[in-house]
Amino acid sequence: MRAPSPEAAALAAARLSDLATPPGALGRLGDLGVWLSACQGEVPPRELDRVRLVIFAGDHGVARHGVSAYPPAITAAMVRTFVAGRAGVNALAAAHGVAVRVLDLGVDDDLAGVPDDVRRFKVRRSSGAIHLEDALTAEQTLAALDAGAAVAREEIAAGAQLLLSGDMGIGNTTPAAALVAAGLGLPASEVTGRGTGVDVPTLEHKQTLIDQALHRAGARVDDPVEALTALGSADLAASTGYLLEAARQGVPALLDGLMAVACALTADRLEPGAAAWYAAGHRSTEPAQSLALAKFGLEPALDLGLRLGEGSGAVAAVPVLRSAVALLREVALLSELDA
Amino acid sequence: MRAPSPEAAALAAARLSDLATPPGALGRLGDLGVWLSACQGEVPPRELDRVRLVIFAGDHGVARHGVSAYPPAITAAMVRTFVAGRAGVNALAAAHGVAVRVLDLGVDDDLAGVPDDVRRFKVRRSSGAIHLEDALTAEQTLAALDAGAAVAREEIAAGAQLLLSGDMGIGNTTPAAALVAAGLGLPASEVTGRGTGVDVPTLEHKQTLIDQALHRAGARVDDPVEALTALGSADLAASTGYLLEAARQGVPALLDGLMAVACALTADRLEPGAAAWYAAGHRSTEPAQSLALAKFGLEPALDLGLRLGEGSGAVAAVPVLRSAVALLREVALLSELDA
Repeated sequence: MRAPSPEAAALAAARLSDLATPPGALGRLGDLGVWLSACQGEVPPRELDRVRLVIFAGDHGVARHGVSAYPPAITAAMVRTFVAGRAGVNALAAAHGVAVRVLDLGVDDDLAGVPDDVRRFKVRRSSGAIHLEDALTAEQTLAALDAGAAVAREEIAAGAQLLLSGDMGIGNTTPAAALVAAGLGLPASEVTGRGTGVDVPTLEHKQTLIDQALHRAGARVDDPVEALTALGSADLAASTGYLLEAARQGVPALLDGLMAVACALTADRLEPGAAAWYAAGHRSTEPAQSLALAKFGLEPALDLGLRLGEGSGAVAAVPVLRSAVALLREVALLSELDA
Repeated sequence: MRAPSPEAAALAAARLSDLATPPGALGRLGDLGVWLSACQGEVPPRELDRVRLVIFAGDHGVARHGVSAYPPAITAAMVRTFVAGRAGVNALAAAHGVAVRVLDLGVDDDLAGVPDDVRRFKVRRSSGAIHLEDALTAEQTLAALDAGAAVAREEIAAGAQLLLSGDMGIGNTTPAAALVAAGLGLPASEVTGRGTGVDVPTLEHKQTLIDQALHRAGARVDDPVEALTALGSADLAASTGYLLEAARQGVPALLDGLMAVACALTADRLEPGAAAWYAAGHRSTEPAQSLALAKFGLEPALDLGLRLGEGSGAVAAVPVLRSAVALLREVALLSELDA
């Protein structure tokens, strides 16, 4: 895995310290600007005009076992809402000039009437209930990883300068937390969160099922592809393939909440160093997200208590990256003021 | 002081809970959207197309007594940089569609060659060294308060839907921290911070001077106008008048760092309830800012370690308010999806 350009990073850091601002006064906007320069190999960084979000949708067998406050049928309804442009992430994307694409990887519905493009990469209907069985077959995992990679290449070919991944799938914080547990070697008790807002008994039940899933999978989770097969889902495997391909192609990605970060962690396990191409958009209320971000030393740009999913936290954070770019591009250099 | 509309707030909160999103999933973006609706008296809130920043510049006598890492001459140089559009805040404002206006209230320089409009409200050259003498005469304080109010009315007449205040003046965290100490009844030890980045001995010296200023002013600081006269400056008094007039006119304001928050606190002392019209843009590294925000129960939208001043943290936070507006305006209602 190629790293973001150390030469560009050094030049960008030098430019940052040559700006007519007190040392360190740009805080994390300075750091983000340097990172973008390194990813782009350009100093100052290019403006982020073409930012693209892909939402990977899929159902999860475990959602039928009491881990969510919502019924699985909501997944298909929300895919229709994305297509209609009426979901939360659509509103944010329109406000901030981000293109949105939604793909059904494993929704437990035929989605009749939804444009064919949405179902182009469909791997299966729902994924297995991970505490009882594998989420996917080995072939399905590879198909989903490949689908995500193909989507990333399409987006990059369409000009994407920054890629975002979103998620939709009732119950998805359960497999995502399990993937973080597998990736970091943590027990269920440390990674389980409240998702869209379950009560304490449901939280405890969810933790039990994650624990069961981890025990069922055993040492297989030491292999990241096996972890996706045993604990993941079609949408999470595709999102992993998408983020991994972004890194391979040298295009930076801005991560959303738990699902994106669980997939980023898995991508970095597949090809160590991938995470150097990722920044963190939003602090999730899910403990597993913070644990995985801490491994990469990533601090989210925003912490607004969002728990909407859909990629919404990453979309809301896009203007923070644009602020970082604007500062490195437009602020006068000390040498210009002296002249 | 009129409060933001409780009727609009109630309707906006009802709309928020009718959105096709899980309860509470929009986090603080939901709260900010409700607040904007209440300020505007409209549900959903109007889009924030016309956002305007006014930077109040002025020098501070105390800056010649070893409280800053920079020489006072930087103030005038930075005013020229704002006019040239090359400062940090100009870059951020251009990126986020915010209009910028800079006004010299008390710069210790004639600013020859700078457009006359910039000096239209000039009260004096520099302000008194607050540990030794009053910052202003009583007449100058009133003139500066009136100037700020007049500027707010001009901006509102020009269509401003959201007002931001910025600051420029070497040494200005010293009077601003003193105003917070006066407003909250705190000692110098709790309000003194590192400004643009002073070392520990300078920090201790700064605290001593703030303590001296508070003792010199004594019980006069119980009156907020007297506090501005004794401890403030022309730019801080004008910024206070500007924020107060925004509240009087029912136009919301988004606060930046310590200077804006010190002025907001003083405005709220002048007319209790003014702070209901303010939101917090950015968490400053200055302790006094967090103390004053806590009094109003305000949580900043961003916390990026910026310590640039200029209003930059507020400008960077404008997209967060736009996210809040977009969600309340554009997301489908549950009733629409059921239909």
